[in-house]
Amino acid sequence: MSTNPRAAIVGQSGGPTAAINASLAGVIKAARSNENISRIYGMRYGIEGLLKDEIIEISLTDEDLSLLASTPASALGSCRLKLPEDMSAGEYDIIDAVFEKYDIGYFFYIGGNDSMDTVAKLTRHFRDSDRDVKVIGVPKTIDNDLTDTDHTPGYGSAAKYIAVTMQEILRDCAVYTKKAVTIVEIMGRDAGWLTAAAALPGRIGKACPDYIYLPEKAFDIDRFMADIQAALEKHPNVVVAVSEGIRDAEGVYIGEAKHKGLDVFGHVNLSGAAKALEIAVKEKIGCKVRSIELNLPQRCASHVASATDIDESIRVGEAAVEAAISGQTGKMMCFVRNTPVYSVDIIPRDISEIANKAKTVPDNYINKDANGVTEECIDYILPLIQGEREIVWENGLPKHFTFDK
Amino acid sequence: MSTNPRAAIVGQSGGPTAAINASLAGVIKAARSNENISRIYGMRYGIEGLLKDEIIEISLTDEDLSLLASTPASALGSCRLKLPEDMSAGEYDIIDAVFEKYDIGYFFYIGGNDSMDTVAKLTRHFRDSDRDVKVIGVPKTIDNDLTDTDHTPGYGSAAKYIAVTMQEILRDCAVYTKKAVTIVEIMGRDAGWLTAAAALPGRIGKACPDYIYLPEKAFDIDRFMADIQAALEKHPNVVVAVSEGIRDAEGVYIGEAKHKGLDVFGHVNLSGAAKALEIAVKEKIGCKVRSIELNLPQRCASHVASATDIDESIRVGEAAVEAAISGQTGKMMCFVRNTPVYSVDIIPRDISEIANKAKTVPDNYINKDANGVTEECIDYILPLIQGEREIVWENGLPKHFTFDK
Repeated sequence: MSTNPRAAIVGQSGGPTAAINASLAGVIKAARSNENISRIYGMRYGIEGLLKDEIIEISLTDEDLSLLASTPASALGSCRLKLPEDMSAGEYDIIDAVFEKYDIGYFFYIGGNDSMDTVAKLTRHFRDSDRDVKVIGVPKTIDNDLTDTDHTPGYGSAAKYIAVTMQEILRDCAVYTKKAVTIVEIMGRDAGWLTAAAALPGRIGKACPDYIYLPEKAFDIDRFMADIQAALEKHPNVVVAVSEGIRDAEGVYIGEAKHKGLDVFGHVNLSGAAKALEIAVKEKIGCKVRSIELNLPQRCASHVASATDIDESIRVGEAAVEAAISGQTGKMMCFVRNTPVYSVDIIPRDISEIANKAKTVPDNYINKDANGVTEECIDYILPLIQGEREIVWENGLPKHFTFDK
Repeated sequence: MSTNPRAAIVGQSGGPTAAINASLAGVIKAARSNENISRIYGMRYGIEGLLKDEIIEISLTDEDLSLLASTPASALGSCRLKLPEDMSAGEYDIIDAVFEKYDIGYFFYIGGNDSMDTVAKLTRHFRDSDRDVKVIGVPKTIDNDLTDTDHTPGYGSAAKYIAVTMQEILRDCAVYTKKAVTIVEIMGRDAGWLTAAAALPGRIGKACPDYIYLPEKAFDIDRFMADIQAALEKHPNVVVAVSEGIRDAEGVYIGEAKHKGLDVFGHVNLSGAAKALEIAVKEKIGCKVRSIELNLPQRCASHVASATDIDESIRVGEAAVEAAISGQTGKMMCFVRNTPVYSVDIIPRDISEIANKAKTVPDNYINKDANGVTEECIDYILPLIQGEREIVWENGLPKHFTFDK
């Protein structure tokens, strides 16, 4: 395989995470030391930039790579573009021209479900047109909702941020003797993996949210009120975590306008689940109540990233390069968990079986009352948040890497 | 002074911060090694607990003290109770009985404006009734709005959290090529000190919010829209920081229902300034827009506390004990800044001149267009966020101290 080295290109796609640059660093690290790879290119703004020939050559020092791995979001930029189903569409001609221009033999795409769709289509295109390009997908998503991998790069850091912040909020809420309800809204429209991480402080420390509601189970507002009342009987400061995606039995989002008394500007979902519940609790129970949306920091808080997550994210990028060089294509790199001592193996799996499917929290991870998670669920998440990455601080702030000069 | 040692009591009051326990640790550290102090008591839930004789004896190891200094919120609990103006009120009889019961000669109260009011009243009471109790206030507030001190313990850590998070949000927002506006709402109802900290990433790194709006200047929604439009001409991702307390020229909060199209459930301030502006930008400009409230983590994110702030907060607690022992009473411990190399001296100042006044951001710290801060302002804040405290991590989360067994 050592004759005729060719170029590799790498891109990032979909929503940012705290670990997507770690996978980029892994790809670059493995590619730059591989004799079969002549040059490393990066597409700016994913496949969208590739179609516009917005391509840069990448040459990074070890120090750059380390900083890159601790920098949140997509250093190369991102996009949400899906390639056409029709393989005779003009986009594929442009792609062929770009690949010829740069003599690209290896294509690495770091992203979530939509990005794996791009990987699947490019694989099909190159196969059908008999071109020798190896196409490998590197997963990332804080949502942890990709199938066929034990977990996704980026999830562990988001889960750690949520657990750390929840523990701090629990301390903050415990200081007064007056009855108060705090509702924390956590990302995850269809999958409750992130919201489940709010349970971790209970295992580790002495503070724990009273209830946790995932989108996998229908949300019953009457039962929720009964839960809150019961908790207020026991202690004055009640803290609950809810997924942004909680829905009633008819599948209507709790944050939607439909719910009585919750006509939020007449717009759908403008308020959010926690804000809607805040208003409902204020009306029904009348005690002090507040809602907190953890919002974007969940996916970009690199300063408190999980070292396990970042290390694995680097490794999965490196493994992608090795897989491509060994002749694999049309694959996504997946984690397989080893137990009882936690470790992961990284293996390539056929992309066509993966793209456009989603993995939600299974029933045995959710308690019977659908207002908490089980010990099994915590056992699953806990190894993923372990370890803290050494951050380079400069004048009081974490130092970030950027391709923009 | 070494004859007849007497007990010291310490309490915490007002809203939690990431540094209020550091000052508690400082008081305990100095008191336990002082021969004039026989025992150290803590009031649970501030003066409210003292009035109910909810008092614990405190005896902590060095390890406990270090953990305490890294634990957010008020480990002893807090309250928002103000003592009566009328010095013949029954509360003062209860206080006298409690002080006699425990032979308390030194009273330390860690808190904000309302707490300094308690310090002032107790001083007056003990002076009028000719009792030998030294009363010292230890300031804390993330709002940085206490007069007569260069800055307040707790502000530096909140400012650091805001700067770190703003830098991460700026990275996150930079990944797409599509026009989008992100509005970040920061705490501070009347003073813009916290919102001003959003400017720090611009000095230190390469990312910077486009505009910053403080509550000290009237907020003009038309000028705001013009600002946003101008920024969108230059780059697709516009990020602004607004104080929760921004008001129009008539003094009406931007988050209030009055503003056209912003009838948020008919309740005042239920939506918040950023949410109101999100809706306004969506209506007027029509691009993608989102709002983010940084919310409680601003005051409790101990995992990313400023080492400068925590160290100074410990020192100010220690200095309070030294002041009391040397015979001072009715004082608040204040920071005096030394320049050009940053350091602080800690001096006691008369509490009666301090209580119930507030310090806002001065004109020379705000730019001419009232949509940003000056270099002078950044020079003032920057030293306060320097340094990172070594956190004890346990199973993936920061280890916290608690008095609850």
